[in-house]
Amino acid sequence: MKILLIGAGGTIGQAAVQALGSRHEIVSAGRSSGQHRADLSQPDSLVALLEAVGPVDAIISTAGNLHFGPLTEMTAEQFKLGLQDKLLGQVQLALAGHRYLNDGGSITLTSGVLAIEPIRNGANATAVNAAIEGFVAAAAIELPRGIRINAVSPTLLTESLPTYGPFFPGFETVSSQRVGLAYQRSVEGAQTGRVYRVM
Amino acid sequence: MKILLIGAGGTIGQAAVQALGSRHEIVSAGRSSGQHRADLSQPDSLVALLEAVGPVDAIISTAGNLHFGPLTEMTAEQFKLGLQDKLLGQVQLALAGHRYLNDGGSITLTSGVLAIEPIRNGANATAVNAAIEGFVAAAAIELPRGIRINAVSPTLLTESLPTYGPFFPGFETVSSQRVGLAYQRSVEGAQTGRVYRVM
Ligand SMILES: NC(=O)c1ccc[n+]([C@@H]2O[C@H](COP(=O)([O-])OP(=O)(O)OC[C@H]3O[C@@H](n4cnc5c(N)ncnc54)[C@H](OP(=O)(O)O)[C@@H]3O)[C@@H](O)[C@H]2O)c1
Ligand SMILES: NC(=O)c1ccc[n+]([C@@H]2O[C@H](COP(=O)([O-])OP(=O)(O)OC[C@H]3O[C@@H](n4cnc5c(N)ncnc54)[C@H](OP(=O)(O)O)[C@@H]3O)[C@@H](O)[C@H]2O)c1
Repeated sequence: MKILLIGAGGTIGQAAVQALGSRHEIVSAGRSSGQHRADLSQPDSLVALLEAVGPVDAIISTAGNLHFGPLTEMTAEQFKLGLQDKLLGQVQLALAGHRYLNDGGSITLTSGVLAIEPIRNGANATAVNAAIEGFVAAAAIELPRGIRINAVSPTLLTESLPTYGPFFPGFETVSSQRVGLAYQRSVEGAQTGRVYRVM
Repeated sequence: MKILLIGAGGTIGQAAVQALGSRHEIVSAGRSSGQHRADLSQPDSLVALLEAVGPVDAIISTAGNLHFGPLTEMTAEQFKLGLQDKLLGQVQLALAGHRYLNDGGSITLTSGVLAIEPIRNGANATAVNAAIEGFVAAAAIELPRGIRINAVSPTLLTESLPTYGPFFPGFETVSSQRVGLAYQRSVEGAQTGRVYRVM
């Protein structure tokens, strides 16, 4: 398969590359990394990316920024960051992307454990991740030509413990190898509208 | 209690008024109805509303617009409508509103059955409603001074069957009386971070 992977250079992106790269052709994209430039927070840049890459068998996003900070100080403007970037950007990959997928192709988005396990400072993340999981369930029933859509929802990766550990007190972590399998399952499997939780 | 109710003039707003109006003082708001003008899609108008009304014991929203339409024709701009209005507007009622609540006060937002039961044309609604339910769970663990937050998630109201029925094939409807009870339970009860599903 030919797979377009947005965020290939990141921690989770590399987990997906490890699981899929040896059997498939991966076309990578990011704001400043990978073979193509694109920014989730700029819907038009995603259309330009899809045009440049042409027909593919799978689209994966392992990217998306959120706002983290205390609820009592959070502003609507800050909350909007996650809506415009991780949520609307990934939604746009489905809204625009299905036209560039071959029959039976798939879309795999990334949410995260905060969808169902809130933490302090994480209200934007929980809302955005829950919205992504909802979107996937709803989009699955309308996508044409056997096109599937799923989300991978990992808990904290062991590799990300040094960076994000303090935000996740007492959370068990998962290996990037296990997270990679979830992307493989979504892309090579037959199911749609699923959230693959890795926790 | 003094209760600020955004959307009081609507079908669900009237259900909340029926359940709460005889025991509490209700201050109503809407874009063009109620005692005060405010628009969920304009975060600043909500701050102005809160300033004008002053300290309250409960804030309820029974308002919020979404985009309905086929997924395969939906644009990022259309999807943004629900994010900016029903989602960010209600989120802003919590982010700004908690400062205007007396100790032990409550915030009650409205999501809807589509959060967990997708329908055709409803991808924006499912994502937005799921995000509201996620936000409520996350905000509940950070709100200060015993302030609580819940969501009411009704399925189709019997009164709304003529308008929305064709979108909800085979869905059972609920009475406005049962929906009103859920708002009462959120406002007069003691729980927080809950989604009261009426279905
Ligand atoms: N790491 C974890 O433990 C974990 C757990 C659960 C969920 N998640 C979620 O998974 C996603 C990726 O996390 P990560 O830890 O792998 O992040 P990361 O290591 O910082 O990598 C992010 C990757 O995405 C690209 N990227 C970032 N923002 C982008 C944008 N707006 N448009 C296009 N590409 C963008 C980055 O490249 P450029 O900088 O070149 O754009 C990079 O390749 C995030 O949404 C995160 O919330 C992470
Ligand atoms: N009816 C149902 O069966 C049902 C079921 C589940 C969930 N819901 C959800 O419940 C909410 C209300 O539904 P409804 O059927 O009661 O609607 P409705 O009858 O149209 O009433 C909406 C009320 O909210 C106000 N409003 C609308 N948009 C607003 C905005 N942007 N800012 C401030 N006020 C606004 C309206 O007054 P103005 O026009 O003066 O602003 C009106 O008072 C919606 O979010 C809907 O998705 C409805």
